[in-house]
Amino acid sequence: MAGSTYGNIFRISTWGESHGKALGVVIDGCPAGLELQEADIQRYLDRRKPGTSTVTTSRKEADAVEILSGVFEGRTTGTPISMMVRNTSQISRDYSEIASYYRPGHADYTFDEKYGFRDYRGGGRSSGRETVGRVAAGAVAAKMLKELGIKILAYTKSIGPVQINEKNFCEEAARTTPTCMPDYEADKKAMEYLAACMEDKDSAGGVIECRISGVPAGIGDPVFEKLDANLAKAVMSIGAVKAFEIGDGIKAGTANGSTNNDFFCSENGHITKQTNHAGGILGGISDGGEIILRAHVKPTPSIFQEQETVNRQGENIRIHIKGRHDPVIVPRAVVVVEAMAALTLADAMIGNMSSRISYLKKFYC
Amino acid sequence: MAGSTYGNIFRISTWGESHGKALGVVIDGCPAGLELQEADIQRYLDRRKPGTSTVTTSRKEADAVEILSGVFEGRTTGTPISMMVRNTSQISRDYSEIASYYRPGHADYTFDEKYGFRDYRGGGRSSGRETVGRVAAGAVAAKMLKELGIKILAYTKSIGPVQINEKNFCEEAARTTPTCMPDYEADKKAMEYLAACMEDKDSAGGVIECRISGVPAGIGDPVFEKLDANLAKAVMSIGAVKAFEIGDGIKAGTANGSTNNDFFCSENGHITKQTNHAGGILGGISDGGEIILRAHVKPTPSIFQEQETVNRQGENIRIHIKGRHDPVIVPRAVVVVEAMAALTLADAMIGNMSSRISYLKKFYC
Amino acid sequence: MAGSTYGNIFRISTWGESHGKALGVVIDGCPAGLELQEADIQRYLDRRKPGTSTVTTSRKEADAVEILSGVFEGRTTGTPISMMVRNTSQISRDYSEIASYYRPGHADYTFDEKYGFRDYRGGGRSSGRETVGRVAAGAVAAKMLKELGIKILAYTKSIGPVQINEKNFCEEAARTTPTCMPDYEADKKAMEYLAACMEDKDSAGGVIECRISGVPAGIGDPVFEKLDANLAKAVMSIGAVKAFEIGDGIKAGTANGSTNNDFFCSENGHITKQTNHAGGILGGISDGGEIILRAHVKPTPSIFQEQETVNRQGENIRIHIKGRHDPVIVPRAVVVVEAMAALTLADAMIGNMSSRISYLKKFYC
Amino acid sequence: MAGSTYGNIFRISTWGESHGKALGVVIDGCPAGLELQEADIQRYLDRRKPGTSTVTTSRKEADAVEILSGVFEGRTTGTPISMMVRNTSQISRDYSEIASYYRPGHADYTFDEKYGFRDYRGGGRSSGRETVGRVAAGAVAAKMLKELGIKILAYTKSIGPVQINEKNFCEEAARTTPTCMPDYEADKKAMEYLAACMEDKDSAGGVIECRISGVPAGIGDPVFEKLDANLAKAVMSIGAVKAFEIGDGIKAGTANGSTNNDFFCSENGHITKQTNHAGGILGGISDGGEIILRAHVKPTPSIFQEQETVNRQGENIRIHIKGRHDPVIVPRAVVVVEAMAALTLADAMIGNMSSRISYLKKFYC
Repeated sequence: MAGSTYGNIFRISTWGESHGKALGVVIDGCPAGLELQEADIQRYLDRRKPGTSTVTTSRKEADAVEILSGVFEGRTTGTPISMMVRNTSQISRDYSEIASYYRPGHADYTFDEKYGFRDYRGGGRSSGRETVGRVAAGAVAAKMLKELGIKILAYTKSIGPVQINEKNFCEEAARTTPTCMPDYEADKKAMEYLAACMEDKDSAGGVIECRISGVPAGIGDPVFEKLDANLAKAVMSIGAVKAFEIGDGIKAGTANGSTNNDFFCSENGHITKQTNHAGGILGGISDGGEIILRAHVKPTPSIFQEQETVNRQGENIRIHIKGRHDPVIVPRAVVVVEAMAALTLADAMIGNMSSRISYLKKFYC
Repeated sequence: MAGSTYGNIFRISTWGESHGKALGVVIDGCPAGLELQEADIQRYLDRRKPGTSTVTTSRKEADAVEILSGVFEGRTTGTPISMMVRNTSQISRDYSEIASYYRPGHADYTFDEKYGFRDYRGGGRSSGRETVGRVAAGAVAAKMLKELGIKILAYTKSIGPVQINEKNFCEEAARTTPTCMPDYEADKKAMEYLAACMEDKDSAGGVIECRISGVPAGIGDPVFEKLDANLAKAVMSIGAVKAFEIGDGIKAGTANGSTNNDFFCSENGHITKQTNHAGGILGGISDGGEIILRAHVKPTPSIFQEQETVNRQGENIRIHIKGRHDPVIVPRAVVVVEAMAALTLADAMIGNMSSRISYLKKFYC
Repeated sequence: MAGSTYGNIFRISTWGESHGKALGVVIDGCPAGLELQEADIQRYLDRRKPGTSTVTTSRKEADAVEILSGVFEGRTTGTPISMMVRNTSQISRDYSEIASYYRPGHADYTFDEKYGFRDYRGGGRSSGRETVGRVAAGAVAAKMLKELGIKILAYTKSIGPVQINEKNFCEEAARTTPTCMPDYEADKKAMEYLAACMEDKDSAGGVIECRISGVPAGIGDPVFEKLDANLAKAVMSIGAVKAFEIGDGIKAGTANGSTNNDFFCSENGHITKQTNHAGGILGGISDGGEIILRAHVKPTPSIFQEQETVNRQGENIRIHIKGRHDPVIVPRAVVVVEAMAALTLADAMIGNMSSRISYLKKFYC
Repeated sequence: MAGSTYGNIFRISTWGESHGKALGVVIDGCPAGLELQEADIQRYLDRRKPGTSTVTTSRKEADAVEILSGVFEGRTTGTPISMMVRNTSQISRDYSEIASYYRPGHADYTFDEKYGFRDYRGGGRSSGRETVGRVAAGAVAAKMLKELGIKILAYTKSIGPVQINEKNFCEEAARTTPTCMPDYEADKKAMEYLAACMEDKDSAGGVIECRISGVPAGIGDPVFEKLDANLAKAVMSIGAVKAFEIGDGIKAGTANGSTNNDFFCSENGHITKQTNHAGGILGGISDGGEIILRAHVKPTPSIFQEQETVNRQGENIRIHIKGRHDPVIVPRAVVVVEAMAALTLADAMIGNMSSRISYLKKFYC
């Protein structure tokens, strides 16, 4: 199965392992004429880089992106855009231990069951470094969407028990705090909570929220290619995400119709909604409101406590995981959520251009 | 966009509108030799049929399926299986009112924005009747999976505030109670709750849970085609589903690694897990445990209270929706969740056959 | 494999067997707002109907199409268009003989090898009747293309040794002669040739040519999705087609660059070519000239001479094929070539709308 | 459109321009466990390398491949295989002239019409160097097929008027002569013919034949995914190919059924055919015989004679093309045909594994 390919028209294929030579992505289907340079990509990659705070691994990777094709004289040519990041900081150490057993909460066992063996160095393809290609491609999609007036903002909503306070919402904070929380106070508390987790040789989970504004009504498809269904797949395909919500999400399951329905209203001929319980999507198609989604992320499975597991010989053993591991996955996954949302929207915006014969006639005649 | 097509190898295309001539599905890619007759399909369709209790619409539809192709002498031939259900009970009434405005919580507005107009009779393509094709195809996928030892069971976990009690779990109840709850007591309470909702001209949401057992370890793909990501898309593509969980789901966001990790253990050479917080999938690939997912479903948007909205002329109006509407969507969506899970698993099981060169050699050499 | 599905955005799935209940197609991805009625489809289906001359089988099929979904108030809704033709004239006879052996030149043996068994009645899925769905869908694609100024004309170029004379070219003849030759003289000669073939209990091959005009420059893609590569697949997917040519085709293999190159020229700022050896496509992308392609079709494999073959028990036997068989496939395949060309162009025209970011900005901003 | 992506399950995405930084390919969907090293790829790339004889350009490119991912400890891991070839010999010269006009027979004009501008250096993405990625991926597919007993051999059948003599057929010659003809005599004559063409500042076309042996009966699909239809697309997607034949190909158009049918025969229970007019495929599915196809290739469009054309300002001009150009495309395209055939077969072999439910049961139960 071509499991590393995503998108129908704006399609990407990512590649690379944690400790291989490099990681990268090919974007096939990006429109021609988009201004693009490596700095546009680097800005996104820097947001997922390790080694930037006490709660991210100490692995130092420049993660410097190189655009290898598809851009000429500063603009995309419409042909595949290949981008690559060389791995430079793989620590050469003895992997025989990690190769020999199955870490709880990791994909070691399932990879072995599927493929018969695995690249065990740093998690191989199942490492968080796999997202380098997603983020590089997402940066291009986001740039394209920006040209169309669409803005995507993701941030940490909670870490463990610490939630942001909407009243303190500050977009800049989302981009600058180590937790990616848009609330300086919550960030501080979350950092304290994480310090306590590390003290306990434990890790924490959390929630990422993503807001997409500027999407016109009418984007997405009914039935299987619903915009929220595609966003769900996009976000659930990020390692460690265990739940997805759109709009009110799980609250809708206990709500009544009278409180869950958003009433339409019209002002000067412009139709909007009085509330946004739906999260900007009705029947799989955008309604012109803000699209709001959430990803629930599990705690980092690599913890430094003793754990029980099985080795490749099928023997029950006790292990102590070593190495470099973040106590929380959430902050570094924020930009990945943004990237996946951008890729999904880019595809949907393009797909929508042929929804009416009148659009084709206007385009061609 | 081909928005009504689902699956890579085991691929389906559904079609039909609520008040059109018929609804149906074409399955392209079903293996040859599967024993199949209309009764196999009918059994599933009967589970989503309206008019079977006080909480489902009084519309009477036989929903009798006809297999039109792809089956010969009682077995699938490997060529497309076309199945059709004629609509017989469309009430011929005046649709000019519903055509003129946008119902809150429905896709009327977004369809108009996307396509320029819509089949407004009974919701057209965005009606719950759209799921007829999904369920018919899902019945075939489920039959194929049964041959491979895989069993899928969905049921109602909660309606409004009423939740099932795991201690009362009874599989037969899930198939026979009007709420599809596997707990006779909870079913009774939920029915009372729904009666109260109807009294209030209101509607209720709920949660559907689905358990998939018998899936061997190694099914699914890393990165974008993760088994849980595909299940998320499958389930979120069902109208009214607003959130998706796998395993512990949202609980994972507040958990610690020490409690969220499932320890592997080995008994007589057979590897299992001591717990199943992950819900049977690690790194996008099945781990041999039971796959558990949940769908959070919003309340029926058609309620009989007065609501505010906008008409096609862009004027603010107040409306009273008429017609036949269930006070809750959940019970009839249970079989749809099963169907979508079956379609997703069928595709994944097939896709996995080529994951190793040794499998190809064994097959061909 | 979903082998009966064609197209990326304008996607179709055909279904049905020669002697099954019905044949049909689902179009998923047709733009909304296209005026469409059953008569538009019927006109195309009538062109492939059996029983219309001495050189087509005497099987009488009304081939009356029914549109089951996706059209409302005379226009496409943007949702799947399901169309069906009931089989009415299956002769109920003893198929045990044909079931027992492998006819030379037919797919009996290969179907058995692939699927383990087959629907042997009238060729099942490998019958020429399989094209009913293609032609119905092609009629819709052609109607869409007509709105965009594109016209597709296919006709018989030769049957056996009888070729048309370009000087006698008459478009009306292509639509009215029994051979579909656009040359009344050649038609007469070809009919004589076919009569002789039938006298000899033999069959004849031939060539179909297709001209597509009105395609603007810039349609199609470089690399794998070249417009001519897709046309080749489309046409070669029609049963009995053994060769495909674009423009000068096989002549290009013996030509020199100096005579094969088409010189560009400009008149009043409009760029055209002085010649059209390329057949309207350069580097996989349309150049604004007429697209010309040819399909070489093998003789009908069912002949009434004694033939050698093998039965299912693996014994060498001699057979005499009975039943209704055209002495030539070409005339009835003409409309199928048109249909496949239309489907391919429809997809390419839609796909091209996102080739430049400036197109997206003009569309959305 | 994702025009640089090919294949359903064994899927590749190629990238790169003639004078860009590098060219490459990502293979997504290759089974795990295949032994693979760079030398396996290099062997194929060397066959398409420029600068190896008097009839190929003097551009010197090492075309050294680097495997960047997806291979661990000498075997494929089942995750994407990324391969790259750095461009090293781009001559830095003034491209302003070539940028200003449209070369006859090239894609300059059509790229500009599609994308608004183009990378004009050495043809950019429409250069023959685009095939580097195809050949690298084809080498992997061929290696996989070899494990399954399938062998693919392509060679030059004719150049201009010079054809090979079947009696002189020598496989080694196909791999060692500058023309890739499997006939030393014909090679000599063809080289003389090419020398004469160059003397005349002209170029020549030719024909490539490809034989695929060892394919079991039952591979491929009926209807749109016919094995020959996919081979046609694969081969026609190679730049400069203008016609495609399977088996007797164009001869079938003038043949009679009595001579075109291949009679089946059985020897010791093994079913074969007495002849192979069909070229190894019946009804889109392999029949166990050798698959034989031919590609007709146009002459190199870059010739050194004066030619008429138009510049970007729409003015009629006369041009003299400079630079490095082969007098014939055929010899270097031979390995590309092999690569495309291998990629198509690899996908078909994998796709066939799920054609029967009994195969799935044997695999899983």
